[in-house]
Amino acid sequence: MIRSLFDLPDGLLYFAGHSLGPAPKLARARLLETVDAHWGARQVRSWTEADWMGLAERIGGHIADLVGARANEVMVADSVSVNLFKLIAAVCAIRPKRSEILVEADDFPTDAYVAASAAAALGKTVVLAPRQGLAARLNHDTAVVITSHVHYRSAHAQNMQALNSQAALVDAPVIWDLSHSVGAMGVELAAHGAQLAVGCGYKYLSGGPGAPAFIYVSQDMQRQLRNPIAGWMGSADPFAFRQNYVPRAGAAAFASGTPPILSLIALEAAVEVIAAAAPDKLQEQARENGQAFIDAIAPHEAQLGLTRVSPIISAERGAHVAYRHAFAPAIVKALEAESVIGDSRPPDLMRFGFAPLYVTAADARAGAAALLRVLRSGIYRDKRFAA
Amino acid sequence: MIRSLFDLPDGLLYFAGHSLGPAPKLARARLLETVDAHWGARQVRSWTEADWMGLAERIGGHIADLVGARANEVMVADSVSVNLFKLIAAVCAIRPKRSEILVEADDFPTDAYVAASAAAALGKTVVLAPRQGLAARLNHDTAVVITSHVHYRSAHAQNMQALNSQAALVDAPVIWDLSHSVGAMGVELAAHGAQLAVGCGYKYLSGGPGAPAFIYVSQDMQRQLRNPIAGWMGSADPFAFRQNYVPRAGAAAFASGTPPILSLIALEAAVEVIAAAAPDKLQEQARENGQAFIDAIAPHEAQLGLTRVSPIISAERGAHVAYRHAFAPAIVKALEAESVIGDSRPPDLMRFGFAPLYVTAADARAGAAALLRVLRSGIYRDKRFAA
Repeated sequence: MIRSLFDLPDGLLYFAGHSLGPAPKLARARLLETVDAHWGARQVRSWTEADWMGLAERIGGHIADLVGARANEVMVADSVSVNLFKLIAAVCAIRPKRSEILVEADDFPTDAYVAASAAAALGKTVVLAPRQGLAARLNHDTAVVITSHVHYRSAHAQNMQALNSQAALVDAPVIWDLSHSVGAMGVELAAHGAQLAVGCGYKYLSGGPGAPAFIYVSQDMQRQLRNPIAGWMGSADPFAFRQNYVPRAGAAAFASGTPPILSLIALEAAVEVIAAAAPDKLQEQARENGQAFIDAIAPHEAQLGLTRVSPIISAERGAHVAYRHAFAPAIVKALEAESVIGDSRPPDLMRFGFAPLYVTAADARAGAAALLRVLRSGIYRDKRFAA
Repeated sequence: MIRSLFDLPDGLLYFAGHSLGPAPKLARARLLETVDAHWGARQVRSWTEADWMGLAERIGGHIADLVGARANEVMVADSVSVNLFKLIAAVCAIRPKRSEILVEADDFPTDAYVAASAAAALGKTVVLAPRQGLAARLNHDTAVVITSHVHYRSAHAQNMQALNSQAALVDAPVIWDLSHSVGAMGVELAAHGAQLAVGCGYKYLSGGPGAPAFIYVSQDMQRQLRNPIAGWMGSADPFAFRQNYVPRAGAAAFASGTPPILSLIALEAAVEVIAAAAPDKLQEQARENGQAFIDAIAPHEAQLGLTRVSPIISAERGAHVAYRHAFAPAIVKALEAESVIGDSRPPDLMRFGFAPLYVTAADARAGAAALLRVLRSGIYRDKRFAA
């Protein structure tokens, strides 16, 4: 618990870290330093003097520690959508005879959107299957599989090792979307046989709104894949301005254009805060928080019209907990009036994220009590909370 | 001349705006507001309350004014590299039988790198030609043409209308890279028949290091092209979380993932500063600056070992001026010691950018005088200026 390191108003129970993590105070300080002492005072010279050139790779090294990867296997670049496209196209290039891109149905929309547009551009076919049915759809025509570790709605945490093993039988790599796990869950990419992954910088990582994403390419895959969007920042020596592309070593070859430095500066501050905060304890705290919330709600669920969507078993759950209720959007607004910030997703889902960095089990219990109060009072039916 | 609106040290002659524009003071103020009052105090609620959702499209509207486009034809997104890839893939999808991607040889490397990797992914062939030879290589197998408006080395400004007309004869759209013209040159995309373009946010636009780029898709092309990296931010209603992709209206359909808001905030401040500064006068001032520099150097060029690379005629030149000299890198360092900031590009090129927003003709003459002093004194041979 390092809540004091974040800019969070006193008394606010912030359960939306699965959507946008709060601002680390260090991010503010670093941004000011960058604008004043680097961009302001030294302008273009800061690319080398402040090592903006090495920033994305350096942050990748920190994130690698959080996801069980080697430092040169993770690069910060672009968005989850763009990185996902790169990996799909790169794998399809080495599986030219395979026609299917197998995608988890009902996953975060961008993943399915990107898969569909990539399939159209590359002459492939998207096959959709629910996460429990992915393994059954694997075959020797499967070029690549796309799924998330923790589901953005249910918080169901998938068994990464099992699916990787099954996909390996048909030699189809899985691209894991870690957006709803990194920074809150234990992720063991190498130990669990993962070859490819993407993830978000602005949820539990708290890197700031729209913070750049990351891309994981295992050393084995680095030997096989080429970046389909080979921009100059993925080249070995950008300032040589060579006409022939020579990729950088490691996952850094999957960078494309110049990264947004101001946003990277905030992300770097955030991952440094996490790195200094016993990251091996994150998952334990997140699960304790989620369980405290679930246990406090459970006896009253049915009576109050709530349906729990998330797994009750901690080991199968990410760091948020989701419920369905016919008035979900209004309930979330009524909770906000009580300084409890969750979110709703159409049509009837509420999510409460229990980021281990700034939420305690006591906070989770206080949040559950607030939810029960709101439901029992019926105040959420007040017209000021209508959509 | 609005130098006072930028954070530039007194006495510094900053001629590197073609590489990284200096910090607008407004960008600092807006970043602090965003970190404190929005991300800090209101967290995830700022997506709607501070209209982060509309930010990229809003900035696109400002940039549209600078490049002679309609507001809904320009979207801010990703990097030049990624946007270029999107346009190449989108055009190739509607020209399935055409095999050639015609690319300007010796242009900014990222353009050729992206063209080559896109060609590999899409099964096309890259054909390279010098900019003067592009028109001659057009044929009915040309799917798309990629070239820059102002060349990053020579500053040669291409006749946009002429090439668009010639390419139209074989029905091949030209993708214009405006990186070295936007914010300093008059660009008339619509009037000159341009259908597609990309451009950089951090050079003359002064949007901050690695600021997001922009993409221009004419209304005519919007009806034909689909974004090959169809992320959720390019969808009509991202927070509906629909499983089927419905594109946003206008060039905004070419957004992909969540944009880096902190970097966008700085870029928005920068384009507002430019919009308030008589943007129709930019090109005139830039040309006057460049001509003042060229005229001051011309009588001494040969004697001092300088070879001018940029066109002497203002109408054929962008906002920077380039020279070759065997000791270019050392000369640039020696100039820096005199508070004159230019840059060098291997092996022997020096560039001096005369951004109209914070450089006057008097500054350009003072810079030329400094260059002549450095060359005449031979101080650049001092070992402290060695590479």
